[in-house]
Amino acid sequence: MEFDTIAAISTPMGEGAIAIVRLSGDEAISISDRLFRGVGGKKLSDMPSHTIHYGHIMDPATDQVAEEVMVSLMKGPKTFTKEDVVEINCHGGLVSVNRVLQLVLVQGARLAEPGEFTKRAFLNGRIDLSQAEAVIDLIRAKTDRAMNVALGQMEGRLSRLIRKLRQEILETLAHIEVNIDYPEYDDVEEMTHQMLLEKAGYVQKEIEKLLQTSQQGKILREGLATVIVGRPNVGKSSLLNSLVQENKAIVTDIPGTTRDVIEEYVNVRGVPLRLLDTAGIRETEDIVEKIGVERSRQVLKEADLILLVLNYSEELMEEDRNIFKAAEGMDVIVIVNKTDLPQKLDLDEVKQLIHSYKMVTTSLKEDKGVDELEEAIASLFFSGEVEAGDMTYVSNSRHIALLTQAKNSIEEAVRGVEAGTPIDIVQIDLTRSWELLGEVIGDSVNESLIDQLFSQFCLGK
Amino acid sequence: MEFDTIAAISTPMGEGAIAIVRLSGDEAISISDRLFRGVGGKKLSDMPSHTIHYGHIMDPATDQVAEEVMVSLMKGPKTFTKEDVVEINCHGGLVSVNRVLQLVLVQGARLAEPGEFTKRAFLNGRIDLSQAEAVIDLIRAKTDRAMNVALGQMEGRLSRLIRKLRQEILETLAHIEVNIDYPEYDDVEEMTHQMLLEKAGYVQKEIEKLLQTSQQGKILREGLATVIVGRPNVGKSSLLNSLVQENKAIVTDIPGTTRDVIEEYVNVRGVPLRLLDTAGIRETEDIVEKIGVERSRQVLKEADLILLVLNYSEELMEEDRNIFKAAEGMDVIVIVNKTDLPQKLDLDEVKQLIHSYKMVTTSLKEDKGVDELEEAIASLFFSGEVEAGDMTYVSNSRHIALLTQAKNSIEEAVRGVEAGTPIDIVQIDLTRSWELLGEVIGDSVNESLIDQLFSQFCLGK
Repeated sequence: MEFDTIAAISTPMGEGAIAIVRLSGDEAISISDRLFRGVGGKKLSDMPSHTIHYGHIMDPATDQVAEEVMVSLMKGPKTFTKEDVVEINCHGGLVSVNRVLQLVLVQGARLAEPGEFTKRAFLNGRIDLSQAEAVIDLIRAKTDRAMNVALGQMEGRLSRLIRKLRQEILETLAHIEVNIDYPEYDDVEEMTHQMLLEKAGYVQKEIEKLLQTSQQGKILREGLATVIVGRPNVGKSSLLNSLVQENKAIVTDIPGTTRDVIEEYVNVRGVPLRLLDTAGIRETEDIVEKIGVERSRQVLKEADLILLVLNYSEELMEEDRNIFKAAEGMDVIVIVNKTDLPQKLDLDEVKQLIHSYKMVTTSLKEDKGVDELEEAIASLFFSGEVEAGDMTYVSNSRHIALLTQAKNSIEEAVRGVEAGTPIDIVQIDLTRSWELLGEVIGDSVNESLIDQLFSQFCLGK
Repeated sequence: MEFDTIAAISTPMGEGAIAIVRLSGDEAISISDRLFRGVGGKKLSDMPSHTIHYGHIMDPATDQVAEEVMVSLMKGPKTFTKEDVVEINCHGGLVSVNRVLQLVLVQGARLAEPGEFTKRAFLNGRIDLSQAEAVIDLIRAKTDRAMNVALGQMEGRLSRLIRKLRQEILETLAHIEVNIDYPEYDDVEEMTHQMLLEKAGYVQKEIEKLLQTSQQGKILREGLATVIVGRPNVGKSSLLNSLVQENKAIVTDIPGTTRDVIEEYVNVRGVPLRLLDTAGIRETEDIVEKIGVERSRQVLKEADLILLVLNYSEELMEEDRNIFKAAEGMDVIVIVNKTDLPQKLDLDEVKQLIHSYKMVTTSLKEDKGVDELEEAIASLFFSGEVEAGDMTYVSNSRHIALLTQAKNSIEEAVRGVEAGTPIDIVQIDLTRSWELLGEVIGDSVNESLIDQLFSQFCLGK
C-alpha cells in the first residue's frame, strides 16, 4: 500500500534526556535530508539502512542550527511500519522536540494520528489486529504478568490459536460444500455430520478455554478495581499506605487528560490493584456512615475487590454490619486490624457474617499480617495453574465479545446438526463463527472499527 | 579516564511510543550482548559502530522474552560520553522499560545518577562545564529564544569567549613575570603597565557586556515571574485566558516532584511568562482587597512583571490607588480594560499614578488591544538589538556570580596599577580573575561543585 509520510513525537511529553521525532513513509528520508546537516555533508539517502548519524537539524528558513541530533535511519521493509522510518533523537526538552517536529511538518510530513504508526504496521501486513492491540496493552501494562500476556499476544500467540480454529471451521465448511454439491452421496452427508460435531465441538471447547482466561486477563490488563471500606479509625489509611509502600505504586497519567485524571496502581504479587477513590479514603473517612447502605452499595458495585476493615479492639457495631450488607455478593477480603491491642471483637460473631470471604488478621501498626493479606489477594484471583507463563489470555473486551459470539454461533450449528436442521442452514452459523474469529485478528473488519481502535493509542506509536 | 558502566531510563516517565534504556561504559556492549538475542544470533560486539539492531531482550534467569527491542550500538569515542554507548529502545510502557533496566542492572551496570551521562561527557573532555550546563538549559527551555541561547552555549560560544579573555589575562601575566624577573629594565615595566591597563580594560569591558545580557538571559532561562492584579471584575481572568489562549501555554512538570508542582508558562513573543499563583487569580479574585497593601507588596515583590488591570467603565477607586502603591518601584504594565463600555475612568487621573509605566487599552471581550499588550511585554524586556540571534547570553546564576567576581578582581588590578601598587600584588588580582573565569568552563572546579551541578539534571541525561 502507499501512504503519505507521517511524523510525531514518540517519547512521552516531559523533561527527559532523549526525545524522539519519528517519521514513516516514502518521503521520510528525503524530508529528513532537507533538514539534516551531517558531518562532512553526508546525505541520509546515501547511507546504508539501520545506521545512526550525528549532526544538526537546520532551519532552512534561517539556516540556523535548530537542534543537535542523532538520526536513526531505517529503510523499509524491515521496520516497525514496513515503510522507511527515520527517528530524530533530540535533547529531551519540550521546545527542542517541538521545534524539530514543526520543521519536519513544514517540509511536508503530516502529523500522525494516535496509533497511526502501529496502524500502518497492521495495514502494511506486518502484524495482525490482535498483535496491534497487544502493542497498546504492552505500553499500558501495570505489572510484569500483564506485560507477559501482552508480549505473548504481540508475538502472535493468540493469532496462531485463532487461525488454527478458523482453519478447522474452514475444513468443515469445505466438507459441507461437497455435501451440498453432491447430495446423492449419503455417506458423505453422514461423514460431514459426524465430522462437523467433532470439529465444532473442538473449536467450541478451545474458545471456552480462552474465555475462561478472560476474567484474569482483564484484571491483568486493566487492574483490579479495589475499594477499602470500614468504620472510621479502623486503619483504612494505614492499609492504603502499607499497600502503597510495600509495593511499588504505579501512577499512571491517562494520556490526553494528564492533569485531570491520575490513577494509582499498586502491584500486589503481579495483581495490579487499581485503587478507587483513594483521595476520598484519605479525606472523607467513612462512605457508609455518610451516604447510607443503599448508596454505598452503588459505590461498591464498581469495585472488583472490597477490602473490608474491622477493628480487633472494638466490638462489632451496627455500621460494620451495614458494610457487610452493602458488600453482599461481591469479592470481599475481611481484614481484622489492630491485633496489637486487647481483643474486644467477637470473631465468632464476625464469622457469621463472613460467608465464603477470606479473613486476614493484621496489625498494620506493627507491620504484621500484610504478607498474608497480599497472599489472600493474589490467590483470590490467581489460582495455581495460572502461574504458567505460557498461557494464552484473552483480556481485550473486543476479543471477549467476538469470542463469545463465535462460541454462540458454533453452539447453534451443533444444535442444528443434532436437531437435523438442513445442512445449508448450519453452514450459515459456521460461516458466521468463522467471520467473527476473523475479526479478532482483523481479517474482516471495517474501517471505522480500525480507526476507533487505533485512536486509543498514544501519539507517536 | 576509566569508569564503571552506568545505565538509566533516558526518556521521560509516562506512557509513550518509545522508551530508552541507555548504557555507557566499557561493559555497555558486553552487558547488552548477554541480554540481547538478535536475528540470526548476531553479537553486538561483532557489529560496526552506529548501527541499529532488531531483536529481543531475554531474561537469562528464565530464558523468556522480556521485551521486543531495537538496539542502537555506538562505540566510543564518537558518542555522547566518549565511551561505548548502547541504547535499548523499548515499547513505551513503564513496566517494559523498568524490566529491561532491571535486567541490565543485574548484569552488572550501575544505575546512573541524574546527569551522570553528561558528567562523563565533561570528565572525558568532550564538553566543558558551561557546555554541560547548557544541556540542562536546553532541556528546560521554555521558548525558542531560550533554546537558541542554550544551543549557542552548548556549541561552545560562551566557552570560546571565556577562553579568549583568559588568554588575554595570561599574556598580561606573562609580561608581569618578565617584569618581576628582570626588574632592571625600566622600559619593560612601563610597557607592562600600559599593556596591563589596555588588556585588563578590554577584558573588563567584555565581561561587563556579558553581564549586561544576564537579566535577559535569566528571563529567557527561568521565565518572567508575572502577576496579574486588579480589583474584582476588571477582567483579570479574561486577561489570563487571553494570554494562555493566544499563546501556547507550556506546562512543565518539575522533575522529581511531578505530582506536586506544576508551573504554567506562556510564551509571549519569545518571552516566557511564568504565571504566579494563577490558580489563586482564578479563585480568590483580589489579593489587595483581602490582605491589605502591605502584604500585597510582599506578594508582588516576588514578581518580575506586574500586569495591573483597571476598569475603563468605572471611576478610579481607592483600591486601584492601593494597588499602584503596592506595586511602586516595580516593572508594571497598566492595562485599561473594557473599552467596549462607556468611559467613566479619568485617564488623566490614571496618568498621574502611572509614572514611567507603559499603558495599554484593551477590550478583552472584543479581543482588542492584546497585540499591543504583547508588544509592550516583549519590548519591556527585549529592546531591538537583542533580537540578533548571535548574541552570547549569560543566564546561569553560577556564571553570573563568577563573572561578577572576575570583573571585580580585574577592576582591583586596574586600580592597583593606577595607584602604583607593586606589580606582584596586581598579579594576584589578575591570577584570581583568570581562575574565576576558568571556573565558568570548569578548568578549575572542585568535585563537590561538579556533583551538585550535575545533580540538577534529569535521570538518564
